[in-house]
Amino acid sequence: MSANRLIYLPLGGSGEVGMNCYVYGYGPKGRERLIVIDLGVTFADMETTPGVDLIMPDVSWLAERADRIEAIFITHAHEDHVGALGHLWPRLRAPVYARKFTGALAKLKMEDQGQDPNNVTIVEPRPEWVEAGPFKVQYVPIPHSIPESSALVIDTPAGRILHSGDFKIDPSPGVGEPWDPETFAAIGREGVKVLLCDSTNVFSLHPGRSESTLPGPLTELVAKSGGMIAATTFASNITRVKALAEAGKAAGREIVLMGRAMRKMVTVGLETGVLDSFPTVIQPEEALELPRHKVMLIVTGTQGERRAASAQLSRGKYLGMTMKEGDTFLFSSRIIPGNERGVLRIMNAFSEMGVDVVDDVNGLYHVSGHANRPDLQEMHRLANPALVIPMHGEHRHLREHSKVVEADGRKAAVITNGMMVDLTGDRHEVVEYIETGRIYLDGSVLIGAMDGVVRDRIRMALNGHVIITLIMDEQDSPLGEPWAELEGVPEVGKSGRPLSETLEEELAEFLERAGGKILRDDDKLDEGIRRVVRQISMEEIGKKPEVTVVVSRLA
Amino acid sequence: MSANRLIYLPLGGSGEVGMNCYVYGYGPKGRERLIVIDLGVTFADMETTPGVDLIMPDVSWLAERADRIEAIFITHAHEDHVGALGHLWPRLRAPVYARKFTGALAKLKMEDQGQDPNNVTIVEPRPEWVEAGPFKVQYVPIPHSIPESSALVIDTPAGRILHSGDFKIDPSPGVGEPWDPETFAAIGREGVKVLLCDSTNVFSLHPGRSESTLPGPLTELVAKSGGMIAATTFASNITRVKALAEAGKAAGREIVLMGRAMRKMVTVGLETGVLDSFPTVIQPEEALELPRHKVMLIVTGTQGERRAASAQLSRGKYLGMTMKEGDTFLFSSRIIPGNERGVLRIMNAFSEMGVDVVDDVNGLYHVSGHANRPDLQEMHRLANPALVIPMHGEHRHLREHSKVVEADGRKAAVITNGMMVDLTGDRHEVVEYIETGRIYLDGSVLIGAMDGVVRDRIRMALNGHVIITLIMDEQDSPLGEPWAELEGVPEVGKSGRPLSETLEEELAEFLERAGGKILRDDDKLDEGIRRVVRQISMEEIGKKPEVTVVVSRLA
Repeated sequence: MSANRLIYLPLGGSGEVGMNCYVYGYGPKGRERLIVIDLGVTFADMETTPGVDLIMPDVSWLAERADRIEAIFITHAHEDHVGALGHLWPRLRAPVYARKFTGALAKLKMEDQGQDPNNVTIVEPRPEWVEAGPFKVQYVPIPHSIPESSALVIDTPAGRILHSGDFKIDPSPGVGEPWDPETFAAIGREGVKVLLCDSTNVFSLHPGRSESTLPGPLTELVAKSGGMIAATTFASNITRVKALAEAGKAAGREIVLMGRAMRKMVTVGLETGVLDSFPTVIQPEEALELPRHKVMLIVTGTQGERRAASAQLSRGKYLGMTMKEGDTFLFSSRIIPGNERGVLRIMNAFSEMGVDVVDDVNGLYHVSGHANRPDLQEMHRLANPALVIPMHGEHRHLREHSKVVEADGRKAAVITNGMMVDLTGDRHEVVEYIETGRIYLDGSVLIGAMDGVVRDRIRMALNGHVIITLIMDEQDSPLGEPWAELEGVPEVGKSGRPLSETLEEELAEFLERAGGKILRDDDKLDEGIRRVVRQISMEEIGKKPEVTVVVSRLA
Repeated sequence: MSANRLIYLPLGGSGEVGMNCYVYGYGPKGRERLIVIDLGVTFADMETTPGVDLIMPDVSWLAERADRIEAIFITHAHEDHVGALGHLWPRLRAPVYARKFTGALAKLKMEDQGQDPNNVTIVEPRPEWVEAGPFKVQYVPIPHSIPESSALVIDTPAGRILHSGDFKIDPSPGVGEPWDPETFAAIGREGVKVLLCDSTNVFSLHPGRSESTLPGPLTELVAKSGGMIAATTFASNITRVKALAEAGKAAGREIVLMGRAMRKMVTVGLETGVLDSFPTVIQPEEALELPRHKVMLIVTGTQGERRAASAQLSRGKYLGMTMKEGDTFLFSSRIIPGNERGVLRIMNAFSEMGVDVVDDVNGLYHVSGHANRPDLQEMHRLANPALVIPMHGEHRHLREHSKVVEADGRKAAVITNGMMVDLTGDRHEVVEYIETGRIYLDGSVLIGAMDGVVRDRIRMALNGHVIITLIMDEQDSPLGEPWAELEGVPEVGKSGRPLSETLEEELAEFLERAGGKILRDDDKLDEGIRRVVRQISMEEIGKKPEVTVVVSRLA
């Protein structure tokens, strides 16, 4: 009989920001009972994942061990923590736990993908516990930029783990529970073996700012603005959405919520009681009847997403509303690195309309939802763990966080996706490297990141695509001439002639020269045609397109 | 006889950052003699211009009036001001003027594209003048992040224009001439009609910082770092490159310059005398013989460019050199918006190697080369123009700059690419809208932005590409079955069967149903096949790929 062990295995979120998925296991080696914390997504970009709709962690390792999964715990309702639930649940089929508001959104994620929402069980926070095999798990309220974010106390026979989830230190976060140092001190006094800790803002050296610093400046800004005001923020930050709406009301404006996510979040907030009230809102049609200075729009699209309300407004009319000279557009948000181009495109479009764009460049209209370096250090002190494992960050965040921990005299370990760590004894040890990766939702199907589909798209985007079709007769001789179709390739080459003609001519010559050995052999023929196309293209247009060869044999 | 007029027409750089190209004209309407200021490029990105090598202003309007161009003046040697010279000169064929260092680099741009470098004439700065038809032009030294940047005084029969070029207010810029308020005050006293003014940093509210604040912190950083140090900065910022090299020398390190642009800039700097000296450098092979703490690399690639030295080092060995645990990598630069992903990729790769990455997050190791808002206001005051036209900025920069000018009680006008303004009298007036746009260097050929080539690439990248081939016999009946090839499309659809098989089956059915009227008509057949492919793809994979149909008729 082998000894029981406690293992930790991140499948997503460690070495990247996004698609969080963390696994803990306890039991005999290879037979550990497992719990999964969060099933999040990350967003695609044109540079590395063109055409992809969503990116999710590859949970093959878990799916092969689905019978050993006791439970899936969702810490909060951000997309990078719950967005993959509906897509991946069919492969895991374990009970899902979440608090009220998070659970309501998790149920919607299940329904969206045709899964039974009753697989999600709503749980109460500390002092309640959820039992899951050898694990006892407790939801501990912790502030973040969405209501009901929770750290998890995970008690195991090998000791206690504190999984911070996403958090900030905020004594007055608005909607949702305030930071309670006493609770974390108590958890620490009971003895924490390992603290898994958010690393997002480890490079921010000053203490974090409270959500409560915003309503003042927001109210002032709205009060002094003429024309119509539109403001965007993350829809899930209900506190902020409410603060914006109240700033509008205080200035005698009617509020319009635009964008599906915006209306959904407020509705779920009210239904689950995390919002005790929200200013009355009106419909866009009603707003059209009012003078512009009596209207405030609160819209989706902080990151320049092309289909969100802010982008639609920047391109013209959206649900009947248009922005005009004298209006104000407020970004109560920050740009997530990589989204700059899309956001700037919107800002410039508004600028061309004569709309004043206000963003957070001076730090008045947005605060982060993550703990800054000194706040992380406060968490380390309170929880007082034997080991800190940084999570929720790119490699540079995990490494820096680890250095901060060590400089304070504690032990730390940089553990990235796929590294299985044995946490049983006094010393942690990496015991296995699991193959991890990404799954893409592409249209309506899931594909593997390594399937080559996206690689081929990138190649076509960079190089264009040449298609050569050729018919071979019953005697394995070319019937007529080869035909070249170009897609995403310059039409005319250096010679001044159409590239397709040049290619067809050169291919015809190649076929004349080629002997029966090549003409009869599909692979050799294909290879020869490709070589000619690439070489001639290089000469004519200075690049080598992707080539597809279709040879039809009448034989 | 029509009256002479003075016109201004930006063809690039107004309403965008990049590909600067400004035209002034003087003479009877439609027969104005023209001068061109700068011929720059902008860089492509995967999102909007995949596969494109360089982006240039569409100079068709100028090319059609090439006989009226008196001269092309280059203000400084940054790519966004001189990068298109070699490519576009053959369409303009006018004399090119530049100062010594700028001219040396402009000549290289000409040579690179097979043009005669003797078309570039080296000119001396103020008090010298260049005569160009009705224009008298004077190069006025002004600090920037490259030596020899110049404002241009452009005297015309209708009054004086001051074209600021790119500039900052820096009393001690290192290499190159310091800011001289007296000169600009004198130019102002002589009477400036219009100031065309850099707008890049109008959103930066504090006065700009001098290049001379950097050598101290750089020297300290290098002195305290163990292991090897690599630092990247813009190669054209020779002052910075020299400061980095001197910091290395001060710490007893040998210097290695890596990256073609880095060596070229230092060489041209020394050859033209703008650099009076540069620390001795060694070759990578020699550096390999030294202990790591005796070596400092100065490398290209501040923006994460995949082929530059910094990216190569982050992926492994480059010219024999590798970065290791304990080394330091310094970004003495800022990230240009849109390049975040590439830079972060490099930072994380170094983090995984155990290399300490230092960037400018705390403002110690980089200063901007552009004038901040109060510095712009100083320029306005000194030049004291009747009108300010903001240039060199996105729309939001031009608009904000304009507002700043007006708040100070001056006149301003937002003029964007393609707007021709008559500046003759006391009031400016937009007299014509010229069709402008972009030209792409794609491989070795120039294509128009609206040619559809890049649009097709983006579509293939987002949707994938399905190619259907079909042979029709002499009786206009399908010979065999249609054939589907997929590129960048998921292989298996919702039905669990290969998409290509499903498509082929459905197309065979469509062809059976189709009457002779469709089968005989290429357009109808093509249209029908496309419709089937899109519809079946939507059902099977939830998206509509690009479709190429090749029908071969044996008839």
